[in-house]
Amino acid sequence: METLLAELRTAVGDSGVLTDADVTASYQRDMMPLAPHGSPLAVVFPLNTEQVQAVVRACASRRVPIVPRGAGSGLSGAANAVEGCVVLVMTKMNAIVEIDTDNRLAVVEPGVVNLDLRGAVEKDGLFYPPDPSSYDWCTIGGNLSTNAGGLCCVKYGVTTDSVLGLEVVLADGEVLRTGRRTVKGVAGYDLTKLFVGSEGTLGVITKATLALRPLPQAPATLVAAFGSTATAGAAVSRIVREGLVPSLMEIMDRTSIEAAETYLKTELGAGPGCAALLICQSDAGGEQARHELAKIEEICLEADLVYSTTDVNEGRDLLTARRAVLTALEIYGSWLTDDVCVPRTRIAELIQGCEDISKEVGLKIAVVGHAGDGNMHPTIVYDPADADQFARAQKAFDDILAVGLALGGTVTGEHGIGKIKREWLAKEIGPVGLRVHREIKRALDPENLFNPGSMFGL
Amino acid sequence: METLLAELRTAVGDSGVLTDADVTASYQRDMMPLAPHGSPLAVVFPLNTEQVQAVVRACASRRVPIVPRGAGSGLSGAANAVEGCVVLVMTKMNAIVEIDTDNRLAVVEPGVVNLDLRGAVEKDGLFYPPDPSSYDWCTIGGNLSTNAGGLCCVKYGVTTDSVLGLEVVLADGEVLRTGRRTVKGVAGYDLTKLFVGSEGTLGVITKATLALRPLPQAPATLVAAFGSTATAGAAVSRIVREGLVPSLMEIMDRTSIEAAETYLKTELGAGPGCAALLICQSDAGGEQARHELAKIEEICLEADLVYSTTDVNEGRDLLTARRAVLTALEIYGSWLTDDVCVPRTRIAELIQGCEDISKEVGLKIAVVGHAGDGNMHPTIVYDPADADQFARAQKAFDDILAVGLALGGTVTGEHGIGKIKREWLAKEIGPVGLRVHREIKRALDPENLFNPGSMFGL
Repeated sequence: METLLAELRTAVGDSGVLTDADVTASYQRDMMPLAPHGSPLAVVFPLNTEQVQAVVRACASRRVPIVPRGAGSGLSGAANAVEGCVVLVMTKMNAIVEIDTDNRLAVVEPGVVNLDLRGAVEKDGLFYPPDPSSYDWCTIGGNLSTNAGGLCCVKYGVTTDSVLGLEVVLADGEVLRTGRRTVKGVAGYDLTKLFVGSEGTLGVITKATLALRPLPQAPATLVAAFGSTATAGAAVSRIVREGLVPSLMEIMDRTSIEAAETYLKTELGAGPGCAALLICQSDAGGEQARHELAKIEEICLEADLVYSTTDVNEGRDLLTARRAVLTALEIYGSWLTDDVCVPRTRIAELIQGCEDISKEVGLKIAVVGHAGDGNMHPTIVYDPADADQFARAQKAFDDILAVGLALGGTVTGEHGIGKIKREWLAKEIGPVGLRVHREIKRALDPENLFNPGSMFGL
Repeated sequence: METLLAELRTAVGDSGVLTDADVTASYQRDMMPLAPHGSPLAVVFPLNTEQVQAVVRACASRRVPIVPRGAGSGLSGAANAVEGCVVLVMTKMNAIVEIDTDNRLAVVEPGVVNLDLRGAVEKDGLFYPPDPSSYDWCTIGGNLSTNAGGLCCVKYGVTTDSVLGLEVVLADGEVLRTGRRTVKGVAGYDLTKLFVGSEGTLGVITKATLALRPLPQAPATLVAAFGSTATAGAAVSRIVREGLVPSLMEIMDRTSIEAAETYLKTELGAGPGCAALLICQSDAGGEQARHELAKIEEICLEADLVYSTTDVNEGRDLLTARRAVLTALEIYGSWLTDDVCVPRTRIAELIQGCEDISKEVGLKIAVVGHAGDGNMHPTIVYDPADADQFARAQKAFDDILAVGLALGGTVTGEHGIGKIKREWLAKEIGPVGLRVHREIKRALDPENLFNPGSMFGL
């Protein structure tokens, strides 16, 4: 292994290779507590595509696995180290290579932080929609690898919908360029969208060409408080059925509201009888935004309280509460957040299912999520030091997925499969689906070099 | 081969297998005159997924290639028969299985005609955006296989952007189900988008789950006439730069305008000095639509004439002219339409390039296209019976692609590679890209059963 380390140091420089176990430990896992992880042989920080190629070739020749990662904000263990691997940290490849205002696109390296890209293009009146909750510290490379979503998806889709092309280092060290710089293009298989969401199992993304949109108008915000999750869920269904497409539509249940209010030392104004809060925004601007929110207000006829505002700061404060839920839950203990997406007509049933599971396992479960696209994050509060609670939290985590699947949903709306939902992927896609996954993996990475055992086993 | 034919008849019934060469000849090619084609051994019409499985297994066991096709409206020869193959015509699998209004999705068989789906969902206030020019006779299966575009793409994307999941019969006859019924979902590789646009080379699509949108407002229409293609191209760039997203933005050059006017016996009102007509629509409705078109009018400052209307019929007539261009060109001879997509800032250069090529080869070239996304269809008028003209048309066809690539574009924006642009795919994606295509094809179709030689050779 000393020869490998020497080669890695030649490839990226001495300072780009960490081997001290105390230091490498902080790169061995992401934010998902349930996922297994091993100890890396080394943690490597490449500075450019050529260095990535050199690292891949050095590891491939010795069959040492590579686990690529960004900031480590993931919630599925996809970026967790496997024993004896090289963790390839892409955060130092963080240049915004180009912003082409006239063609509304940006070319970026994978280490660029989501928020930095948003800020950079905003100056030119442009908008990069994907906004995962960790947008202020997660990287574009991680977003691409997990096909990250966020609060924008109800109107603007997930990460893959904003990707035009990629540069990827393959298992033999060759560089693949996929996609294009044009708005449309159908030359060959859509390799771009195959690599997006492949969780580092097929190659290392070293550059991305991203489609940008015109910067939307400052959002107008509506909050509706419901006395039951069923009436809130029914309102979501009606909003969809009426053909409305708000730019954001989030839901918080009672537990989430209480946690956020306590943590932020503020009142969300939902009132004591509130079981669910729906937060909607329209970024259509002016009259159109007021019209959209007025229609939503009409639809929320069973709400105990509806409040609308065009004040941007007030809207931001409401969203701050929504975004703070996970952190706020730490008042009660550690959290374990799940990720399940159901048809939009089944949201109320999913929330009810989570309430039932909460009672059964005897743990608090807060439900927050992207109501506009049925993507819910039931979050279990538990004490990881208590083995019994840990086991019950794990059971709740799985039971939630079972409810989601039974409702016609998917076991991950945006966090990915990683190292925590492998058996659930198999359940969802079945044996033929799994076989095709393995065939594609073997075709592109025959030695199982990249992130082995993530998503599925070979 | 008699055994195979007997097995096919057992699979789909006697009436579902055609072998008379006079009859099968009409299923041996699509609408692209340059593409090579062979004579099929048989033309088979399956009625359901089980029949497709039986046909695939029968052919696979004898290594008889299968070429799947829909209505045959394609423009790349992707659906052209190879010698001795079974042509699998999917047009009788044409059921709209389900329209789920509340979750805004439809489940359809591949033989459903695009226009029939549009009509069926419109009754429920829903909208299926992809609208290739042949939308009144092309099928959803063909649209999926070629990742078809249309006039809607500037605002609503291409076919792949509307697909949630697929059912596909694989080379061994097994049924793969990809994707989901939820709005979001990232469980596993994005196999859905791998099959979309794969031109029948990876499997036979037997069902599709499609995302629908709320029906937009009746469109308002603007027409702007320019004295030069350069000023029209510059206007397109400015419209994009200003952050406007019309629901349609088409361009017609002088040759197209004259042909359409003659064919339709109407005046488009562009005037004799008009070199390019820009047609824009907004489906935002009411005040917002008027505002969008007013901003476009402001931007078209170099236009000789700008005309706006909220009259739906008047708007439809203008679009009829645009849609009629190819048919109208038959006044002058046969046509050969190309498909190239360039960055939106380079449209004027592409049109200029086509004018230069037209002069060089001595053939009329009409340029029409989807200006809003840079996807142009320069169409060469020629006499296919004249060998010299045929050769010059072929040269022009290739020269246009070379200009497109040199401008940073792609050799196909929406028609596909098929059997006509194979060497251009290789040029565009390079040797590593081609290798990855071959690896994926071999992984999923190791015996090269499906549409062999289309897109690329093994």
